[in-house]
Amino acid sequence: MFKTNTQKGVFTIAVGLILWFLPAVMALPAGLTIKAWHMFAIFVATIIGFILHPLPIGAIALIAVGVTGFLKVLKPGEALSGFGNGTIWLIVSAFLFAKGFIKTGLGTRIAYMIMKAIATSSLKLGYTMAITDLIVSPATPSNTARGGGILFPIVKSLCSAFKSDPEDGTQKKIGSYLMAATFQNNCVTSSMFITAVAPNLLVVSLAAETAGVNISWGQWALAMAVPGLLALLICPILVYKIYPPELKETPEAPALAAEELKKMGPMKTDEKIVLFAFLLALALWATASFTGFNATMTALVCIGIMLIGGAIEWNDVTTEKGAWDTLVWMGGLMSLATGLNKSGFIKWFADGVGASLQGVDWLTALVVLALINMYVHYAFASLSAHVGAVYAAFLAVAVAAGAPPLYAALLLGCETGIMGCLTHYATGPAPIFFGAGYITQPEWWKVGFICSLSSVICFLGVGSIWWKILGLW
Amino acid sequence: MFKTNTQKGVFTIAVGLILWFLPAVMALPAGLTIKAWHMFAIFVATIIGFILHPLPIGAIALIAVGVTGFLKVLKPGEALSGFGNGTIWLIVSAFLFAKGFIKTGLGTRIAYMIMKAIATSSLKLGYTMAITDLIVSPATPSNTARGGGILFPIVKSLCSAFKSDPEDGTQKKIGSYLMAATFQNNCVTSSMFITAVAPNLLVVSLAAETAGVNISWGQWALAMAVPGLLALLICPILVYKIYPPELKETPEAPALAAEELKKMGPMKTDEKIVLFAFLLALALWATASFTGFNATMTALVCIGIMLIGGAIEWNDVTTEKGAWDTLVWMGGLMSLATGLNKSGFIKWFADGVGASLQGVDWLTALVVLALINMYVHYAFASLSAHVGAVYAAFLAVAVAAGAPPLYAALLLGCETGIMGCLTHYATGPAPIFFGAGYITQPEWWKVGFICSLSSVICFLGVGSIWWKILGLW
Repeated sequence: MFKTNTQKGVFTIAVGLILWFLPAVMALPAGLTIKAWHMFAIFVATIIGFILHPLPIGAIALIAVGVTGFLKVLKPGEALSGFGNGTIWLIVSAFLFAKGFIKTGLGTRIAYMIMKAIATSSLKLGYTMAITDLIVSPATPSNTARGGGILFPIVKSLCSAFKSDPEDGTQKKIGSYLMAATFQNNCVTSSMFITAVAPNLLVVSLAAETAGVNISWGQWALAMAVPGLLALLICPILVYKIYPPELKETPEAPALAAEELKKMGPMKTDEKIVLFAFLLALALWATASFTGFNATMTALVCIGIMLIGGAIEWNDVTTEKGAWDTLVWMGGLMSLATGLNKSGFIKWFADGVGASLQGVDWLTALVVLALINMYVHYAFASLSAHVGAVYAAFLAVAVAAGAPPLYAALLLGCETGIMGCLTHYATGPAPIFFGAGYITQPEWWKVGFICSLSSVICFLGVGSIWWKILGLW
Repeated sequence: MFKTNTQKGVFTIAVGLILWFLPAVMALPAGLTIKAWHMFAIFVATIIGFILHPLPIGAIALIAVGVTGFLKVLKPGEALSGFGNGTIWLIVSAFLFAKGFIKTGLGTRIAYMIMKAIATSSLKLGYTMAITDLIVSPATPSNTARGGGILFPIVKSLCSAFKSDPEDGTQKKIGSYLMAATFQNNCVTSSMFITAVAPNLLVVSLAAETAGVNISWGQWALAMAVPGLLALLICPILVYKIYPPELKETPEAPALAAEELKKMGPMKTDEKIVLFAFLLALALWATASFTGFNATMTALVCIGIMLIGGAIEWNDVTTEKGAWDTLVWMGGLMSLATGLNKSGFIKWFADGVGASLQGVDWLTALVVLALINMYVHYAFASLSAHVGAVYAAFLAVAVAAGAPPLYAALLLGCETGIMGCLTHYATGPAPIFFGAGYITQPEWWKVGFICSLSSVICFLGVGSIWWKILGLW
C-alpha cells in the first residue's frame, strides 16, 4: 500500500490531522468532549504509526507524548506518567534479568543440562527447548531475548552438530523441526507469565484502567498454569506430527551437551548470583499476595543484587537498548491509553457497541471477540501494537455486554502470547527463526495455524474451565 | 579512606543500616515519624553512595528506589515518580539535542565559523570557545557532552595545529591556556541556563519541593543573563592574565578554521534540521511564560522534528546511554528527595537549624550558606551528588532564617555550574581536560580558585543587584 517511509509518515500524520479537525465540519458524537476526541485522534494516529512504522515505534511514542502534552490534550504530568509506571519498570527490570541470563551463560547452561539429561531423540530435544523456555520465561519479558538470545543460538548449534543446513538442502533432517517447535513453544510460554512477554504488562495495565480488574503476577501464573502446561506438553509433539524431522533418534545429543557443559566448566559465581536473584524474585513474586511486596520493587531489589554481586555491570544497564526502547514506546503508549480512557472515550465507545449487542448473551459476544482478537493478528507485525490497538476496546465491549470483567480480561489477555505463533512476522523472535532459512513461509503458516488451534483450545477452552474451578468467574 | 569498592559498599550499607535501626536504641527526635526517619536513613546511604561510588551512581539510585519501595517506606508509585518527572525528561531530551549537535557536526561548525571571523590571537581563540559554548549551552545539559564532546576536540585539534603538546614540553605555547579557559568558560555557561547542566534541573525541582518556588526556564535565563555574560566576558581574559600562553598572536587561525570549514563543505540538511529544532526550542522556551507551552513537551516535539527529519535516528536515542544513566540516577534521586521532603524531615531539620539562627539576620545567614555551598565543593566529585546532598537542606535553612524563597533558591542554585571550576575532579568535563596533560594539578587549582572568586562576585554580587532590579526579591 505504501512504498516509502515518507508515504507512511504522511499518511499517519494525515489521519491524525483529519480526525483532529473533523469536529470542525461535523458535530461531535453526543457524550464526548472535544478533549476526548482530540485524545482519540492522537491515539489512532499513534497506533497507525505503530502498525505502519514509518519510524521505529519508540520514536512515534515519544513524538505522540510530546504532541499530546504540547497541544495540552494531556497535562505534562499525565503525558509522562507512563514513564513512572510500575509495570514499565518491571519490564525494564526483566530486560536486565534477561541480560544476566544471556551474559553469564546461565540460560545456555540450563538448556545443555536438560539436553544432557533427556535428549536422546529429536522429540526430546523439542521438549528440552520447551522446558528451558519455561524455566527462563518468568523473567524474560523480551520474547525476542529469550527466543532469539538464549534458545535460537542453541538450536542453531544443534543444527550444525547434526549437519542439518538449508544451504545444502538438509534442513528437514532435524533443523526445520527444532526451529519450528522452539518458536512455537516460545509463544506458549509467552502467555504463561505476566513477565514472559512485554505486552502482557500492557494487558494488565489496560485491564486495570478499563475494567477495574487488578491481576497480580501470582494470579496470572496460577490461571495460566494448567492451560499453559497442557499447551506446552502438546506443542513439541504436535509440531513433530505435522512437520516431522527426518532424523528421529539422537543418541549423540546428551554426549554433545555434556561436551558443551565441560567447555563451560563449573558454574561461575556470576551465574550463581543471577540464579539466586532469579529464584528470589520468583519466590517473592509468587508469594506477593501474602507478603504484600510489590512486584516491581522486588525486581529492582533483585537487579540490585546482580549489580552489587557484579553479575551485570551498570554499563550493561545503560546500554541495554531494548529496555530503553520498551520504556519509551510502552510508557508513552500507556500514558496515551490512560489519557484516552480517562477522557471517557473508551466507555463511550463500549457503551455504544454494548447497546447494539442488546439481546446477544455475553458468552457468545466474548467468544466472538476472543476469536477475532486472536486471528486479526494476521494483520499485525507486533504483539504490542495489537494490544495497544485492540485490547482496551474489546475488553470494554465484552464487559458492557455483561461478561465478568476478570474473566474477559484473562480470556482476551492470555491470547497475547499465543497469537504470535501465526506468521513469520507476528512477533520479534519470528523473523529471527524464519530468517535462519529452515522453514518456508507456507510451512510456517501451516504449522502456525495448527498450533494456534491447539493453543486456543487449551487456553480459551480448558483455561475457562480451570478459571471457573479457581472461582475467577 | 577506603581502598576497594567493597569497603566503600560495606560502609555505605552500614551507615544506612545503623541509621535505620537507630530508633530501636534511642528515642526518635520529637516531631519526626518513623517513616521520615527511615526515608532519611536510605537518603543518607544513597548520598554517601553517590559520593564514594562503590558502584556507578545509577546503580545506587536504582537500588535505593527498589529498597525504598520494597521496604514500603514509599509506595511503589511514589518510588518511581521521579522517572515520570517533567524535568527528568527535559534532560533526556536535551541529551538528544546534544547528540544532534555532535552527530551532525553542527557544534564544530559553529566553533569554526566564529574562529574564522575573529580568532587572530590566543585571547580571541579563548573568546571563540566562550561564544561557542554559550550558543550551544541552552540545549546541552550534559556539560560533559558540551565540554568533552564538542569543545575539547576542537581545542585538541587547535593544539596540534599550533604544535603545542605536553609530550614535547610545548604545552604552555597555547594549549594550556586554551584548555584552562575553555573549561572555565564551560563552568560559567553551566550556570546560565536550567538546561545547561543536568543538576540545575534538580535544583529547580528541589526549589519547588522545598521552598514552593517555581522557576521557569525563561526566568532563570533572564536572571542569569547579566551575571553570566559578565562572568563569561571576564573569564577568557582573566585566565589569560593569570595563566598566559607563550604564543599571543595567531594570525593563521582564521585561515585554519576556513580550511576546516571547507573540508566540512556546505551546511548539510541534517545540520539545518538540528539548527531549526534548536532555535524553535529556544524560542518556545524563552516565551513559555506567555504561550504556556510546557518546556519538556516543547523539547519532545523538537526532538520529534529531528527524528522525523532523520537528523538523529531512533537507534541514537536508545543507545544514548548518558540519557538513560541520568534518567535513572536523577529520577531515582528525585523520588527519594521528594519522599524525604513529603515525610516532613526537611522541614523538621530546617525549623531546628532556623531556630538556632534566631537573632542572625537572614542575609548574613544566606551569604554564609552560599559561601559554604560553593567551597564545600572541594569535597565533591560531582555537581549532582553535591546538589542532592546539600541544596534542599541549605535552602530550607535559609528560608527558615527569613530569606525570600526565590532569592535564596536562585543564589544557592546559580552556584551549581560555577562550583565545577574548582578542582580537576569537580565535574564531568574536568577530568577530560585535565587528562589531556596540559595543566598540572597546582595550576588547575590556582586558576580554578581565582576564577571562582570572579564567578562568585558576578553571580552572587552583581546577580543579587540584578535580581533586585528584576523585582525577584
